[in-house]
Amino acid sequence: MLDEFEQIAQIMAPLAEKAEGAFALKNDAAVFSHGAGQMSVVTTDTLIAGVHFFETDAPQDIAHKLMAVNLSDLAAMGARPRYYTLNTSYPQQITTDWIKRFASGLKAQQERYNITLLGGDTTCTPGPLTLSLTAFGEVGQGKALPRSGAKAGDLLCVSGTIGDSALGLLVARGLLEDPTDTLRARYLRPTARVALGQALVGTAVTCLDISDGLVTDFGHMQVGADIQIENIPLSPGARQALTQDSSLLSIILNGGDDYELLFCIPSDKQEDLDTIAQKYDSDIHIIGRITDKKETRLLYKDGTQLTDFQKGYRHF
Amino acid sequence: MLDEFEQIAQIMAPLAEKAEGAFALKNDAAVFSHGAGQMSVVTTDTLIAGVHFFETDAPQDIAHKLMAVNLSDLAAMGARPRYYTLNTSYPQQITTDWIKRFASGLKAQQERYNITLLGGDTTCTPGPLTLSLTAFGEVGQGKALPRSGAKAGDLLCVSGTIGDSALGLLVARGLLEDPTDTLRARYLRPTARVALGQALVGTAVTCLDISDGLVTDFGHMQVGADIQIENIPLSPGARQALTQDSSLLSIILNGGDDYELLFCIPSDKQEDLDTIAQKYDSDIHIIGRITDKKETRLLYKDGTQLTDFQKGYRHF
Repeated sequence: MLDEFEQIAQIMAPLAEKAEGAFALKNDAAVFSHGAGQMSVVTTDTLIAGVHFFETDAPQDIAHKLMAVNLSDLAAMGARPRYYTLNTSYPQQITTDWIKRFASGLKAQQERYNITLLGGDTTCTPGPLTLSLTAFGEVGQGKALPRSGAKAGDLLCVSGTIGDSALGLLVARGLLEDPTDTLRARYLRPTARVALGQALVGTAVTCLDISDGLVTDFGHMQVGADIQIENIPLSPGARQALTQDSSLLSIILNGGDDYELLFCIPSDKQEDLDTIAQKYDSDIHIIGRITDKKETRLLYKDGTQLTDFQKGYRHF
Repeated sequence: MLDEFEQIAQIMAPLAEKAEGAFALKNDAAVFSHGAGQMSVVTTDTLIAGVHFFETDAPQDIAHKLMAVNLSDLAAMGARPRYYTLNTSYPQQITTDWIKRFASGLKAQQERYNITLLGGDTTCTPGPLTLSLTAFGEVGQGKALPRSGAKAGDLLCVSGTIGDSALGLLVARGLLEDPTDTLRARYLRPTARVALGQALVGTAVTCLDISDGLVTDFGHMQVGADIQIENIPLSPGARQALTQDSSLLSIILNGGDDYELLFCIPSDKQEDLDTIAQKYDSDIHIIGRITDKKETRLLYKDGTQLTDFQKGYRHF
């Protein structure tokens, strides 16, 4: 096992070589700045073994998820990712090989999203592996996408497909079969909609990422809506699961960990949306319309209302 | 026990009310910017119950230490503290009352250092209480104090007194008696030399904070020095302990957690140093001189050399 200093120098420092202000991770602090007319955006998430991922998950997958959950928060602000800091608390059984594979997972995400390690802290813990990542992005002054402020008539839109990750967790736990073999991968390796978030600046009036479930996260927009259930985009895997067990709809709507963007656009901007959807690697679906009521209704095509949908996942 | 959302709204959000870009902690991300001609400085440290503090320590003390260890890193860069984000992983037995007292400790530090909560993440852990704080400061472009670059002839200086915290840990463990009753408080509530760090910009050529012990941290300056042992500033408590057991010198030199600044100034700037020392709340002592040798010597007044000083604490 490499000691703390060797580990930082040999495994982590190469991840920071593109950031001059990271001082090759030899400093306790790092410096960075944003461009003229820009703001820094910061977000942070902690993932814990046994709580947010399985201890036996591949280190590359854990790195992927750790990065994705944070990049998704930047995406929801319309920010361009730039840097991240990383706090790793390792239990004793972690090996140098594990850390190397974890770092290779970080590297893959760095290259994909043009983001660079800036600093961090490494500690030992008698508890489970605990990882905190703090991601930094940049957005034009006054351009960050807000979470609330949608008006009656605005269209409610969502990227990608919903529910795959929550169903994928059931698959990982052996509670659901997935003949399409796609759901578990969506749970392990969610995709942060980073390019889409930036593209929505100027078009979307509100935006957030779905981490706690579609229904719960929509609540953060603080408006009512009529949501068309059949318009909620489902993957073939989710559709198949739902056909076999209709009670899974609650998991799809409330399960969380989708890391898709949920956003509103004025109804006269629907054309912009088509352009954006064509340009970026994510489908966009209009799933409903903001109303002037407080209540949110989940409606089937035939006008019947789904009334027994559960509340989303609360962490404790 | 309040749930996650109530806890954030009721206990943590008041700590963020001075930061407009914190969005009252209702967002997953926050925005901030630095002034023209400034750079952002970022540092992060994780503290774990049973590793970095005692589980039974007062929550206010834990908050104090968590903030101080990070502010000390900003101080070493000469940066002015501005914001922080906080990742808390709570074990199940943590109560709402505990969190309130922890927040009151954060508030005290916020007021003292004019720093504001900007965001964070709250999780549950089956392991020990784990706290990661990421602190943000600001420093003029190109003005951040470097860790290395001192030249032969430069004076090696240190703020405050050395070894109190390491001896205080022995006191806390019941391994040392402290008739002065001062050492344990220095271990529990170290003082980050924030004003001094900023004052050293333009005068100091290198600066770092002592977290791993005077000897180990001096090593990061990557130069040799002659250090006068009798010039290393000791508190009355440390002096008394050392008189009774001279082997404690190794703890004083290598124990760490001092959070004093160790820095070099050109020998012709000694007068500036006196001005700075008078202006700020910290004594400054010149403890040695940088040499053109690789080796660092710890010398007694009579010219004899201390050769058996141990290496500093390595985390693992």
